[in-house]
Amino acid sequence: MKYSDSGVDIDRAGKALKSAGAAIRGTWGERVLSGVGAFGGLFDAAKLAEDPVLVSSIDGVGTKLKVAFATGLHDTVGQCLVNHCVNDILVQGARPLFFLDYFATGGLEDGVLEAVVGGMAKACGENGCALIAGETAEMPGFYAAGEYDLAGCIVGVVERGKIIDGSAARPGDKLLGFASTGLHTNGYSLARKVLLDEGPYEVDSRPEELGGAGLGEALLAVHRSYLPAFEALVAGGVAIKGMVHLTGGGFTDNIPRVLPEGCGARMDRSRWTVPPIFGLIQKHGGVDDLEMHRAFNMGVGYLFILSPEDAERVLRLAPPHLIGEIGEIVAGEGVEIL
Amino acid sequence: MKYSDSGVDIDRAGKALKSAGAAIRGTWGERVLSGVGAFGGLFDAAKLAEDPVLVSSIDGVGTKLKVAFATGLHDTVGQCLVNHCVNDILVQGARPLFFLDYFATGGLEDGVLEAVVGGMAKACGENGCALIAGETAEMPGFYAAGEYDLAGCIVGVVERGKIIDGSAARPGDKLLGFASTGLHTNGYSLARKVLLDEGPYEVDSRPEELGGAGLGEALLAVHRSYLPAFEALVAGGVAIKGMVHLTGGGFTDNIPRVLPEGCGARMDRSRWTVPPIFGLIQKHGGVDDLEMHRAFNMGVGYLFILSPEDAERVLRLAPPHLIGEIGEIVAGEGVEIL
Repeated sequence: MKYSDSGVDIDRAGKALKSAGAAIRGTWGERVLSGVGAFGGLFDAAKLAEDPVLVSSIDGVGTKLKVAFATGLHDTVGQCLVNHCVNDILVQGARPLFFLDYFATGGLEDGVLEAVVGGMAKACGENGCALIAGETAEMPGFYAAGEYDLAGCIVGVVERGKIIDGSAARPGDKLLGFASTGLHTNGYSLARKVLLDEGPYEVDSRPEELGGAGLGEALLAVHRSYLPAFEALVAGGVAIKGMVHLTGGGFTDNIPRVLPEGCGARMDRSRWTVPPIFGLIQKHGGVDDLEMHRAFNMGVGYLFILSPEDAERVLRLAPPHLIGEIGEIVAGEGVEIL
Repeated sequence: MKYSDSGVDIDRAGKALKSAGAAIRGTWGERVLSGVGAFGGLFDAAKLAEDPVLVSSIDGVGTKLKVAFATGLHDTVGQCLVNHCVNDILVQGARPLFFLDYFATGGLEDGVLEAVVGGMAKACGENGCALIAGETAEMPGFYAAGEYDLAGCIVGVVERGKIIDGSAARPGDKLLGFASTGLHTNGYSLARKVLLDEGPYEVDSRPEELGGAGLGEALLAVHRSYLPAFEALVAGGVAIKGMVHLTGGGFTDNIPRVLPEGCGARMDRSRWTVPPIFGLIQKHGGVDDLEMHRAFNMGVGYLFILSPEDAERVLRLAPPHLIGEIGEIVAGEGVEIL
C-alpha cells in the first residue's frame, strides 16, 4: 500500500499550489523574506512603527462555502475571507501586513484550490497584504465529495498611540454606515435553509425581488473591505472614535463590543434601504425584525463612530460606499433599532 | 424562525469559551493588550529584537482528529496543533509569540470545545506563547455529528542575523535526531485505514506489539515541541546550521527543504529504534520501507544539522529526547536511507 492509496495525494496539492504560485508571489512586497514551501513565512518587521502593536485575527467564511459548492463558483470565497479578516483588525486601527490560509478538503478537485487561492491572492493584493503561507490539508472521510473548509489568519500593525477601541465614544456621537455587498460571510445557515433547503429556490433561480440577478451570485457577492474608506477618513484628518465590523451577531452583538460602559446605540432604520436579499430571507423564513438585525448586516457592513463635527466632515468627503448617518450613541446600554 | 433554528447557537459557543477563559488568559504575558472577545488580538511588539523578523505558520492536525472522535479524548489534539506550529517556526530559529485557533464544528457538544481549547492553552503555556484569539465556527451540515476540524496559526520572532535556514550545511555535517512520541500529526489517514478501518483493531484494542498500551491512546500521543531542545543547544553555545521538522512527507520530502544545492542526506536506520506503532502499521498495511519514511517520522520528530564538533558537544550536553547521531550530510541530492 502507498500513502496515496489512503486518499491523500501530496503531489497533487503541490501542483495546484505551483499554478497559483505567481499570484501568491505577486502579493509579496520587499518585507517577505521567504519562498513558497518554507516551514514558516518570514516577514521583515524592522521599523513597522515607532511603537508597534501587532493586531491579529482568525476566521472562516462559514456555510457561504455551501453556495460555492452548489454553484461551482470558487473565486469569491477566498476574497471574502481576506476582506473579512482585514475588516476585523481594521476595527482597532490596524493595517494588514500578512495573511495565512488553511484549506482542508476530503479530496482535491481540479481547479478548485487554484480558484480559492487565486481569490485570496487578489484580495491580499488589493489590501496591500502579503499572502505569506498556507496549509493544504487533504482529509479523506472528513469532508463530503467536492467540499472543503477554509480558514484564514491575518496579522496587521497599528501605532500604539493610534489604537482605536471605541473608548472615546460619547452620547451624541454619530454612527456612519457603509454599505455591504450582501450577507458578507454571516447568516448563511439561516439564509440557505429558508431560501434553498426549505424554500422555493435553487442557486440558479432569479427571484423577481432581486431584479433579475441570480440567487447564487447574489449570495456569493464578495465581502467588502473597508480599508479604502478608513484610509479616506484618515487622509481627511478625521478623528475616528470607534469602528464596528457587522459580522456574526449583527447589530445587536457587534456594536456593544466597542462601546464604553454607559453607552448604547440607537439605529434609525429609515435612514438606509435594506437590500432585497434580506427582505427575501425575512419573507420566506418568517424571521422577525430583531432577529434579522442579530443574524445579518442588513446592508450595512461597517460603522464609524464619530463626533458630530467629524461626521459632517465625512459626509462632505463622501468616501466610497458611504450610506450616511444611520444612528447615534446614546446614554444607556445595548442597541435599539427604530 | 430564529437563527438558532438553523442549527447555529451563538450563545452556546460563548458559554463554552467563557469556561475556558481562565486557561486562555493564563497564557497571556504583559505583551497581550486585548481582552477575550475583541475583534482582533493586540500584541505589544515594541523591542522584540534589534532587527526583528516575524515567522508565521498555519496548520491543522489532519485526521488524527478521527481518533479523538472515536475515543472521546479531546484534550491532546489541541496540544498537538500548538506544538506542531511551534516546531515549524523553530526550524527558522524563531521563538513563538502568539497563537490563534480556528475550531469548526457541525454542532457544539458539551465539554468538547473546552477540552480542545484547554489543550491548546496548556501547550501555549508550556511554549511561552499567548493564545491570543480564536474563532469558533458552527457550520451545520458541514461536519458529521460530534466531529470538528481544527486549525491554528502561530507567529514568532527571530533576530534577522540569527535566522537559521540550512544554507550553511556542508557534506560531513551530522544529523542529530530527537525522538517523536509517535505519529505526531502525520500519516493518520494511512494508519487508520490499515489498523482500524480495514485492519483488525478498534481504538480500545491493546495490540501485543504495543506492550499493553491502548491503540487509541498510542495514536493520540501528544506531538512533541522541540523548543526545549533548541534552547538547550543555544544555551550550550552550539551553532545550529539547520533544523528539520519531520511532518507530512517524512524524511524524503522534509530534509531537502532546508538543504542547499549540492547537498543530500544519508540516514542510518541502524542508529535508532523505530517505535512499535510504526511496525504495526507497516505489517498490516504491507507498506514498503521507502513509503514508510515518506509518510511517517518513524520515531524521529526533529533533526538538527551540526558540524561534527558541535555534534560531539551536543552528545555531551544530552538535551531532552536526544536519540543521537542518525545521519550525515553528503554531496549530492535527495535522502538515502540505509
